[in-house]
Amino acid sequence: MIDRLIDKIIEKQNPTVVGLDPRLEMVPQFMRERYFNEQGKTPKAVAKMFFEFNKEIIDNVYDIVPAVKPQIAMYERYGHEGVQCYIKTNEYAKSKGLMVIGDVKRGDITSTAEAYAEGHIGEVKIDDQYYNIYNQDAITLNPYLGSDSIEPYIKYCEKYDKGLFILVKTSNPNSGEIQDLKTNEGKLYERVGRLVSKWGKQLMGEHGYSQIGAVVGATHPKQAENLRNIMPNTYFLVPGYGAQGAKAKDLKGYFNKDGLGAIINSSRGIIAAYLKESNKLKFSEEDFALAAREAAIHMKDDLQGNLFES
Amino acid sequence: MIDRLIDKIIEKQNPTVVGLDPRLEMVPQFMRERYFNEQGKTPKAVAKMFFEFNKEIIDNVYDIVPAVKPQIAMYERYGHEGVQCYIKTNEYAKSKGLMVIGDVKRGDITSTAEAYAEGHIGEVKIDDQYYNIYNQDAITLNPYLGSDSIEPYIKYCEKYDKGLFILVKTSNPNSGEIQDLKTNEGKLYERVGRLVSKWGKQLMGEHGYSQIGAVVGATHPKQAENLRNIMPNTYFLVPGYGAQGAKAKDLKGYFNKDGLGAIINSSRGIIAAYLKESNKLKFSEEDFALAAREAAIHMKDDLQGNLFES
Repeated sequence: MIDRLIDKIIEKQNPTVVGLDPRLEMVPQFMRERYFNEQGKTPKAVAKMFFEFNKEIIDNVYDIVPAVKPQIAMYERYGHEGVQCYIKTNEYAKSKGLMVIGDVKRGDITSTAEAYAEGHIGEVKIDDQYYNIYNQDAITLNPYLGSDSIEPYIKYCEKYDKGLFILVKTSNPNSGEIQDLKTNEGKLYERVGRLVSKWGKQLMGEHGYSQIGAVVGATHPKQAENLRNIMPNTYFLVPGYGAQGAKAKDLKGYFNKDGLGAIINSSRGIIAAYLKESNKLKFSEEDFALAAREAAIHMKDDLQGNLFES
Repeated sequence: MIDRLIDKIIEKQNPTVVGLDPRLEMVPQFMRERYFNEQGKTPKAVAKMFFEFNKEIIDNVYDIVPAVKPQIAMYERYGHEGVQCYIKTNEYAKSKGLMVIGDVKRGDITSTAEAYAEGHIGEVKIDDQYYNIYNQDAITLNPYLGSDSIEPYIKYCEKYDKGLFILVKTSNPNSGEIQDLKTNEGKLYERVGRLVSKWGKQLMGEHGYSQIGAVVGATHPKQAENLRNIMPNTYFLVPGYGAQGAKAKDLKGYFNKDGLGAIINSSRGIIAAYLKESNKLKFSEEDFALAAREAAIHMKDDLQGNLFES
């Protein structure tokens, strides 16, 4: 999986990923009204409009970006109708050649971890039938439960060529409360980083990176530089660019000298670009996906200027 | 929520919870065949048979136990059909007067945490309509992301009288890999325990316990005794009894002297009791729910003998 992702990053010369995290207030008024009229003000209406919203975004960015990262919470909130939209979104993104990183942040043990692994990155066996349920190339995981909660996924990664991005240092202001605690083996996030690196050794790809990556928030450049040294062969999935405050110039330390090693996520800054004050005169509501395209191109240029030219 | 739970525990004289974690191989052959014939070997067939399986279990234990704890992974594995079954199971359990603790172990920040909180323990607003999506009284959460990932839920707990059980010390053998790391403020799980206790002070119930509880595995009695001292006003949700190896006599230290303070989960040991070697002559497949009833009564007696008589 990591080789496929890196190939796409090189082909598109773009280490970014679009976060497909729709919220009702981001959906253009005309689209909201159409589905509310058709389906009532129901979870089903929301699921249908989110799919159309995502589809238009995907149609306008699939030639620019290597991957999308849907955040399952935004769909799960609306119950099973929402989850169906999540699955359809993943299917559609894959049909357009995009990689799908499911931001699910699951974390559980034994048969429960097996259930998540099978559903999200493996195949579900029903008697003699097999189903690929979630159509994801990789998912995010939480490490608090230790190896027992990660190992069940590793065999699925191997068998189905899938990837993991494990939370190491998250982008939120308060992430240090737990993750920066000093332990007898360095700070907690460093310890987790070393574990992720160790787990990853089993699944090295041809470009020199592991199928097991790490989530490292864009808002902590110093810790990222430290982690870059601790785990040189681990790909970083980096949330927090744009809306959460990080800029391209802060992100240099997330990459290795080969220009690889990190993929930067932007969600709201791209999918809701038409709502930005400076875009309101330029793009009508109907053109929300064109605004997303422009924002995606702008992000690519922004990161390239800083990262690939040096 | 915690007062409602404690009232039910006292009323039924039973500090246990039934884990509704169905797996295909637990469903009796006759039931599997019926739904495969009706719906094909599909996720929809599995979702329908899981619901019938759960419904029969609930019908046979609702007068004995105060609560059920469905593990969402077992349903999510089958995609949106599975999630629909999860929601219907919760609805049915509540209609029989049971409390529902959703074992979701979510953990995320800002607007993502809001989305989970709204969906799982709040109400989802769609224009001027409000929906209760998941029908849960409480959910489990993962603390690795710090306060930012817990605080969004607290206001929903307050507004909708819901509860949280935050992972502190989990039941898996390898939980110590992260959770037992020595930090500058004690072991990590102790530090997390103190945080949970601090968060909980905002939401104290009338019985002297907080709406914010902790998950403390039944397989670590020493650490539990330590945590019992660190967090006397925190209710413990305790997985790992039975199938994972812990016995009633190991669990004394999880309770306070008032006989309260912990609720013990058993999943497989109850819902798949009819598959136990010693039950095979006693219960036919058709009587799987009667076997579950007997196992639930046995567990109640087992815990009472050890905990309430002293």
